[in-house]
Amino acid sequence: MTGPVSPLALPLPEMPAIAGAECASIAAGIRYKSREDMTVFRFAPGTTVAGVFTMNKCPGAPVDWCRAALKGGKARALVVNAGNSNVFTGKAGRETCERTAKEAAALIGCKPREVFIASTGVIGERLPTDVLLAALPGAVAKLTADSWQGAARAIMTTDTFPKGATRTAKIGDATVTICGIAKGSGMIAPDMATMLSFIATDAKIPAEALQKLLSKGNAKTFNCVTVDSDTSTSDTVLLFATGQAKHPRVPAEGGAMLKDFARALEEVLHDLALMVARDGEGAQKLITIDVTGAVSAKSAHRVAMAIANSPLVKTAVAGEDANWGRIVMAVGKAGEPADRDKLSIAVGGVWMAREGGVIPDYDEAPVVAHMKGRDVQITVDLGLGRGKARVWTCDLTHGYIDINGSYRS
Amino acid sequence: MTGPVSPLALPLPEMPAIAGAECASIAAGIRYKSREDMTVFRFAPGTTVAGVFTMNKCPGAPVDWCRAALKGGKARALVVNAGNSNVFTGKAGRETCERTAKEAAALIGCKPREVFIASTGVIGERLPTDVLLAALPGAVAKLTADSWQGAARAIMTTDTFPKGATRTAKIGDATVTICGIAKGSGMIAPDMATMLSFIATDAKIPAEALQKLLSKGNAKTFNCVTVDSDTSTSDTVLLFATGQAKHPRVPAEGGAMLKDFARALEEVLHDLALMVARDGEGAQKLITIDVTGAVSAKSAHRVAMAIANSPLVKTAVAGEDANWGRIVMAVGKAGEPADRDKLSIAVGGVWMAREGGVIPDYDEAPVVAHMKGRDVQITVDLGLGRGKARVWTCDLTHGYIDINGSYRS
Repeated sequence: MTGPVSPLALPLPEMPAIAGAECASIAAGIRYKSREDMTVFRFAPGTTVAGVFTMNKCPGAPVDWCRAALKGGKARALVVNAGNSNVFTGKAGRETCERTAKEAAALIGCKPREVFIASTGVIGERLPTDVLLAALPGAVAKLTADSWQGAARAIMTTDTFPKGATRTAKIGDATVTICGIAKGSGMIAPDMATMLSFIATDAKIPAEALQKLLSKGNAKTFNCVTVDSDTSTSDTVLLFATGQAKHPRVPAEGGAMLKDFARALEEVLHDLALMVARDGEGAQKLITIDVTGAVSAKSAHRVAMAIANSPLVKTAVAGEDANWGRIVMAVGKAGEPADRDKLSIAVGGVWMAREGGVIPDYDEAPVVAHMKGRDVQITVDLGLGRGKARVWTCDLTHGYIDINGSYRS
Repeated sequence: MTGPVSPLALPLPEMPAIAGAECASIAAGIRYKSREDMTVFRFAPGTTVAGVFTMNKCPGAPVDWCRAALKGGKARALVVNAGNSNVFTGKAGRETCERTAKEAAALIGCKPREVFIASTGVIGERLPTDVLLAALPGAVAKLTADSWQGAARAIMTTDTFPKGATRTAKIGDATVTICGIAKGSGMIAPDMATMLSFIATDAKIPAEALQKLLSKGNAKTFNCVTVDSDTSTSDTVLLFATGQAKHPRVPAEGGAMLKDFARALEEVLHDLALMVARDGEGAQKLITIDVTGAVSAKSAHRVAMAIANSPLVKTAVAGEDANWGRIVMAVGKAGEPADRDKLSIAVGGVWMAREGGVIPDYDEAPVVAHMKGRDVQITVDLGLGRGKARVWTCDLTHGYIDINGSYRS
């Protein structure tokens, strides 16, 4: 928490208030001392909600709780804590969620099932429920509309910078706003979602349509980021639509009128997902991997992820070595259709290998210069079909070892 | 090559001569200077051969060559070089194999398809064929029966210690001998095989039976080792049976009379595979992972491999932290049947978590002491069925980053 900020950090943008969404962060003292570690959101009556969650088979109690609550499609509150993930805590963990929801519901005036819960931090330690509950009334008393920046900071764990993004979109002639925050740095290999991200909009969108948009946008953003191939037990993305904006009625299935909103939402998800990669534990370089010419988009994604998760590719990038031989290895280990003799590889836009062999006398100077920069581009063409995918990761450095060899102590 | 030796290194054992197998290593100067980097084996007429190879979709030209040669089931020679893997070298790579086999066949007096070839080292650079061919006659002139130790050294790349193992077995009343060597340190996540390993026996075993034994033994040994989840493009294990020992005739399908031989072979494969894990790049600790209670052996293996490949588990072990929360995460991300609430975890034989929660007041002192040692034991019981598996890996340390951030330079 007190280490250096990632060299890939981006500044936290100004984030406007979302009508119908209020927020407050306070220092509850759940694990961290002298910093805000608990965040509460209150949403206007009628707020709809969509969510995507980790596919890890050992999810935390808050993930179970949110999955069940999501069935109602309505949200009035969100309670988030950092420092303890309430994962693998058995019956005690479930009770923490039940008591938190009940207490928050009483304070806000809603049903417990309209309260969403997210926790992040150490796995396997009991969350001190009494400490959390004792802090709730103080947080509710502090709720204000203009508090995204504080929330972005309060949900951090090993993150080195707070992450937020905002966009506007047109629905009919009306302009609606989307704000989102995220946290995540290690244990990042989202399956259906990633770590914690919370997004709110003043648009009035039925839960069904909202879910469709979130699932689609998530697949192209958070699910395309990996730091260390380790899929967290707490991954949660929640999207709240407060319905305070005045615009034509959106049907349950969504459809064409949400086209611009879908674009804006995907941009917010994209920004947040890339910030997670930029804050990858120990990251010194952001790596963008494009795979084209695969037999399908799914196949392209798997090949891209195999490259992004290869420790040998990631350490080579850390060493500023455009080691395309390791990229060949990673393509081959993905288990997807690939033909060595049709494979082409470019780094920084310079094709180094084409159709199964190195390009004799390719110009190495721009590649060397590219590898010294903060943004590294790897492009792989499989030469088989029209499937393509883009994923993002970071390099693997001594910083990752430092952070993770001593996280609990 | 000149760095410190792994703290997990084992001494190279005495390895007896195998009747019908001769060997020589010389400094061919293919990549390394002033060290032996090429090894030639000559086998007696009638020698049978079995092999398993990488499942990487971008295999090296030598792997393609061996796969084709293996169809004949007969071997007279093996040519191995270190420093250049002859992978992703297109037509030039294939020609290198063809010329090498032809030249070796002429020197030894056999067919080119009875010559096996293995290369290991940098991917994507043309192997200087003329340099290799120029060295061949000198190597053949040096062939002796008692040269396993030199070969174990000459096939090394980033290995920090040479790897060998030997056993005897009974076939009928006769005693046969097995000797094997291996190399491997990084890019270790064998799929059908691993890196390079060469084993010879004086037993007379038909190729079909030999292949069956090797495939079975390999599945329980080399295929249960991972250093960094990166499956090499060159993984090759070859087993040669020279047939010089006098024992009852073994039928094509092998069978009961090979029971003791199978036991001895598996022990050799096991020893060699563990040495590869012990020499994992940067390794400070050898990690043994046992998974029990899975729905099947295959499922147990996948869960064990998910733990073994988790950077977060491996860095925690490097930090001497028995972070069982990360083990929970790795179990859950494996995608195999798992029930959080039936999961139990032990480290160093001490159960820390049982049936979905931490064991209150488990004795931490022996766990702390265990984590400070060189051998770390992780045991996971899924509580679902009778499937079990054991795999081995090493911790992830600064040494791995050092080695792989600058391998080519």
